[in-house]
Amino acid sequence: MLNFDFYNPTRISFGQGRIAELDRFVPASAHVMVLYGGQSAQRTGTLDEVKNALGARQVHLFGGVEANPTYEKLMEAVEIVRAEQIDFLLAVGGGSVIDGTKFVAAAALYADEPWNILLSGGRDIKQALPMGAVLTLAATGSEMNNGSVITRQSLQAKLPFHNDLVFPQFSILDPTKSFTLPERQVANGVVDAFVHVMEQYLTYPVNASVQDRFSEGLLQTLIEQGPLALSQPDDYAVRANLMWVATLALNGLIGAGVPQDWSTHLIGHELTALYGLDHAQTLAIILPAMMHERRVPKREKLLQYAERVWGLGDGDEEQRIDAAIEQTREFFETLGVKTRLKDYGLAQDAVEAALQQLEQHGMLQLGEHKDIDLAVSRRVLEASL
Amino acid sequence: MLNFDFYNPTRISFGQGRIAELDRFVPASAHVMVLYGGQSAQRTGTLDEVKNALGARQVHLFGGVEANPTYEKLMEAVEIVRAEQIDFLLAVGGGSVIDGTKFVAAAALYADEPWNILLSGGRDIKQALPMGAVLTLAATGSEMNNGSVITRQSLQAKLPFHNDLVFPQFSILDPTKSFTLPERQVANGVVDAFVHVMEQYLTYPVNASVQDRFSEGLLQTLIEQGPLALSQPDDYAVRANLMWVATLALNGLIGAGVPQDWSTHLIGHELTALYGLDHAQTLAIILPAMMHERRVPKREKLLQYAERVWGLGDGDEEQRIDAAIEQTREFFETLGVKTRLKDYGLAQDAVEAALQQLEQHGMLQLGEHKDIDLAVSRRVLEASL
Repeated sequence: MLNFDFYNPTRISFGQGRIAELDRFVPASAHVMVLYGGQSAQRTGTLDEVKNALGARQVHLFGGVEANPTYEKLMEAVEIVRAEQIDFLLAVGGGSVIDGTKFVAAAALYADEPWNILLSGGRDIKQALPMGAVLTLAATGSEMNNGSVITRQSLQAKLPFHNDLVFPQFSILDPTKSFTLPERQVANGVVDAFVHVMEQYLTYPVNASVQDRFSEGLLQTLIEQGPLALSQPDDYAVRANLMWVATLALNGLIGAGVPQDWSTHLIGHELTALYGLDHAQTLAIILPAMMHERRVPKREKLLQYAERVWGLGDGDEEQRIDAAIEQTREFFETLGVKTRLKDYGLAQDAVEAALQQLEQHGMLQLGEHKDIDLAVSRRVLEASL
Repeated sequence: MLNFDFYNPTRISFGQGRIAELDRFVPASAHVMVLYGGQSAQRTGTLDEVKNALGARQVHLFGGVEANPTYEKLMEAVEIVRAEQIDFLLAVGGGSVIDGTKFVAAAALYADEPWNILLSGGRDIKQALPMGAVLTLAATGSEMNNGSVITRQSLQAKLPFHNDLVFPQFSILDPTKSFTLPERQVANGVVDAFVHVMEQYLTYPVNASVQDRFSEGLLQTLIEQGPLALSQPDDYAVRANLMWVATLALNGLIGAGVPQDWSTHLIGHELTALYGLDHAQTLAIILPAMMHERRVPKREKLLQYAERVWGLGDGDEEQRIDAAIEQTREFFETLGVKTRLKDYGLAQDAVEAALQQLEQHGMLQLGEHKDIDLAVSRRVLEASL
């Protein structure tokens, strides 16, 4: 096991009917900005439920935070927070809204040009407004971590930042809030959580027995519950399992003490920034090709994955690895998330454009061995066509 | 899955050579009491390492905290803390020292008679001194939770308390510090962690897929690594896995959203209070008998445990349950922890004495169904003879 630090102070309030807890979590005197995405928060009544729970507190609504939240939109919120002296932020939505709220929390108190938060990876954040979250979509884990990914449209750039000051103070996870989600978002969430685990699991062995077993447990749960979430959209137990899996997939726990990859994410980000593909779609495209490309450095973990997650014991080692990659691809396809660039109308020129972006963003040493250069990324992208 | 709250703000610093981090974690102006157990902290050099890391800070050493730490001894520390205006507590040891330090942290600022902390289960703690821990023995999970168990010798009472104010602010987990432990303590630690998981896992199914998988992963790791820790006492990877397993076995994670039992612990506590048995010895005695006694209400989870943890697929359901109980008993015995009262020189009069204590402490509705009354406890104790 590698040396590690683990710290996660977010309070989780999990279950049906927990939104009323806001009254306990948000200071009575707070001037609150509630950030949310599209119309669904309004249509489903969640926004009303939140407003009721906040009672007499002064509340400013800020809607329209996009999937892949943009710097441009979020800076509107920053201006309002500063002008109105808002002192508490509440995200109501999925990972995009929570990521965006983290950016607003840091940017509102940031002395310099806020884009530098992204350029510094969050390292130079000195303070941030307190924030909480009401989760409506299980996927990114943002509800219980210190990370965020922001897109700047004018630069076609999608960049991450991390800082302990943007941990949500609390997150309310009510699985019933995910009942009304469109299938595409549910499926995307399953893929997103799955690939989060894979980025922290499918590297090389460091004798971290617990982390491996936990990761395998999350993957098995996603494989078992993911398809049920689509076929039985109002099954509480299924949605509860998915919501908790997605949170645990990226709250720092399974990644503590092990090498991490993240190359699939970083290449995928460029496809979203360039072509607006859903985040999970980019992961479903890149991961199978990446697994194939990295079958030598990832050999031992690929075999462990094949055996423990998919129960693949037949054939020689190469066959078991091929079968595990094929099962992974089929799992994504079964959920309705396509796994080839051509399925999204993209061809060789998209490969060239993505490589150009990777070069421009300095993404030249990706992966757990930092040896995925542009030549390797090219092979992965071309194998994804 | 049941509704749940999860909150755990303890910072973990894990790995070899991390004790130097104390300088970062403890305020520079702190007046520190370092609490520890016997001579081993001194003999192994850990205490010196801690003192060096604390640098110029004013340090008061308080040694002699017992296994099953006593109110009597800890009240001596409370007096010193008050008299010397100590404002930070550092536990250096295993679960007993950390549990004791939690009590001192709360008792030092407690207006009333501190035994009331135990009588109220910790509910009425209003403040506590900040504390941290340097862990030398993987077992109880106290390094990353808000619980503590204290024994009052004069009353032969061993009682738990919980409060978020006694979460360690940080815990330093250096697996090398466990290399020099006596075999008995290592074996006890494995049993303790194993039964912690069982108390949260072996109840009845609530469709909590992740919690089940995580629990099974912890049990599998203990079964695999426990014997290695005895045969290869200086294998870093093994000790690292055991240390992290024991922490995760009782940091609130696997117990969130599921029913919990704890009857084995509560009956076991009485045996420790009466006869001074090691905590883990009492668990190894009670658990197999409890599993047998509760084979009907625990049926589904017993079958799941048999299959997923021990790979038992042969025979009918009763045979698989019997085999799983037998494997559990053998696992403890293989570690050198005996599983019968008679192995410790105890007989029927110990059963009567334990039942009397259970009655006196109001332990009349134990277990996840609150239906383990004195009659059931009697059957369990008699089956443990």
